[in-house]
Amino acid sequence: MVKNNMKIKGEDKKALWFENDTLYLIDQRKLPFSIEIIKATTVTEISKIIKNMVVRGAPAIGATAAYGMVIGKNNAEETANILKKTRPTAYDLFYAIDYMLDQINQNNDAFFAAEQYVENMINQCRFIGIHGNKLIKNNMSILTHCNAGALATVDWGTALAPFRIAHQEGKQIFVYADETRPRLQGLLTSWELTQEEIPHAVIADNAAGYYMKNGDIDMVITGADCIAKNGDAANKIGTYEKAVLAKENNIPFYIAAPSSTFDTTIDSGKDIIIEQRESQELLKANGHQIMPLETPVKNPAFDVTPHKYITGFITEKGIKKR
Amino acid sequence: MVKNNMKIKGEDKKALWFENDTLYLIDQRKLPFSIEIIKATTVTEISKIIKNMVVRGAPAIGATAAYGMVIGKNNAEETANILKKTRPTAYDLFYAIDYMLDQINQNNDAFFAAEQYVENMINQCRFIGIHGNKLIKNNMSILTHCNAGALATVDWGTALAPFRIAHQEGKQIFVYADETRPRLQGLLTSWELTQEEIPHAVIADNAAGYYMKNGDIDMVITGADCIAKNGDAANKIGTYEKAVLAKENNIPFYIAAPSSTFDTTIDSGKDIIIEQRESQELLKANGHQIMPLETPVKNPAFDVTPHKYITGFITEKGIKKR
Repeated sequence: MVKNNMKIKGEDKKALWFENDTLYLIDQRKLPFSIEIIKATTVTEISKIIKNMVVRGAPAIGATAAYGMVIGKNNAEETANILKKTRPTAYDLFYAIDYMLDQINQNNDAFFAAEQYVENMINQCRFIGIHGNKLIKNNMSILTHCNAGALATVDWGTALAPFRIAHQEGKQIFVYADETRPRLQGLLTSWELTQEEIPHAVIADNAAGYYMKNGDIDMVITGADCIAKNGDAANKIGTYEKAVLAKENNIPFYIAAPSSTFDTTIDSGKDIIIEQRESQELLKANGHQIMPLETPVKNPAFDVTPHKYITGFITEKGIKKR
Repeated sequence: MVKNNMKIKGEDKKALWFENDTLYLIDQRKLPFSIEIIKATTVTEISKIIKNMVVRGAPAIGATAAYGMVIGKNNAEETANILKKTRPTAYDLFYAIDYMLDQINQNNDAFFAAEQYVENMINQCRFIGIHGNKLIKNNMSILTHCNAGALATVDWGTALAPFRIAHQEGKQIFVYADETRPRLQGLLTSWELTQEEIPHAVIADNAAGYYMKNGDIDMVITGADCIAKNGDAANKIGTYEKAVLAKENNIPFYIAAPSSTFDTTIDSGKDIIIEQRESQELLKANGHQIMPLETPVKNPAFDVTPHKYITGFITEKGIKKR
């Protein structure tokens, strides 16, 4: 068993875990204001948890779905169909479900298979951290967008894993965390960095360009929800903006993701389905209504960053430069 | 007297007006949730109104300061000093105060001078609308950032003036309005466009690039707070991001501003002072606390868009292509 790395008030924790036929998850909707654990014991509950963004981040969604398959193993095909309908863009979701389906069809122990899937993922993230750390020099300032941390990947994180390793090695780093409207996942990133005592600041999504142009940002690392064969990558809305700005300012832009995020059946970003989410998300911020209900809005949840803006991919296997 | 153009529930209105030694302003902090009029009769009140962002937008700030000089005309130099300390980036503020100081020193009627200043500004905005409208073709979709509308300029607006004229002429247009964190001035833009029944949608600042790359945006028009001699322009934080993205996607990027926003004493953007505002702005959204108070944040209020990203300037004199 890989040692937990994510911290809550100094104690080692994970974003989700499975015990006694029950999935326990930190409710990401309540963070950073309160730490609440939510339980799920049915496929319907798991499906709601994914849809309602109790859990966020493609790898953690994949882990949740894997445990959902454990709960629904006796109706594996039906469970797979239900869970696949929860979120359209997170490739790990489909990857995890198909893997579990295969294991269950081979009569392998579902719980053991899910545990192995999740531990493997955590280990991949740790290796992403080890490889990504090689890119980080002392006194670097690094921008990240959304939350590609332990919360999004059960432990370690993808984009945040290199920050953790660099910090543990004693490197001085400073992280700029885009607040990431509409869902403000930048606050999750800030919460994780605070637990690790990594110096950082949350900025408006609008301010990233300002700091890039001022020479205050040395590198950008984000996660991804789906990477096509040609290297085009879908990630949280706004990632494309940061990638263009990074290129314009000659700042290296890396995507950190495990191999399970690479969808080899998709040729290019054009074929990635982009989820359009409900307008309520934009009308609210952390549960507060900040816009009149009648405000006309559009709310795409992801965008695609063409490969030409991506300096390289940090995977568990190493750094794949383009 | 130029006819009022801005509408509230179908009635012609202005963002601010001066009557019986009293300045009346629509409280922009309360919009779009409620329409409240705030009064000011002393220089201290005027100074607070500018600082606290009851009034926003460089031209409207200039108008407010001009009326402030009417109220403080008997201590003109002192009044000028107080008002100049309210906001550092809005060039119109200094322009209006120096104009009024000059008029008062020449023993001209202060109220008449301020009225003339404001009417002249409104007229300039109307001409910005007339010139800008020439760039707008039927069925165009146009992105704008922040609020460069009537609220920001007393009437007509700068960036929004061309939209008004195009709409009045029967052209079909669609406006994408960036929500513009942290202060969400996009809601003011949405409120103005709703009053005029101009079709539009508010989007997360993160989503502008997505729509540009998708070919959904034909043109970008924003206002500016200060334009240097070489054409570098300071405007609301995030404007630089949109300008870079527009260039990358071959979308024309125009800045609409009256001549009073051009600061001929400043050579380039490097010399424009950028206001850093208090962290509270980012921790809140429309009065609601959306981030924990201890969240470390950085909050620059403006950025500078280098002239190379600006296709042209729409002024009261016409379109100045670069």
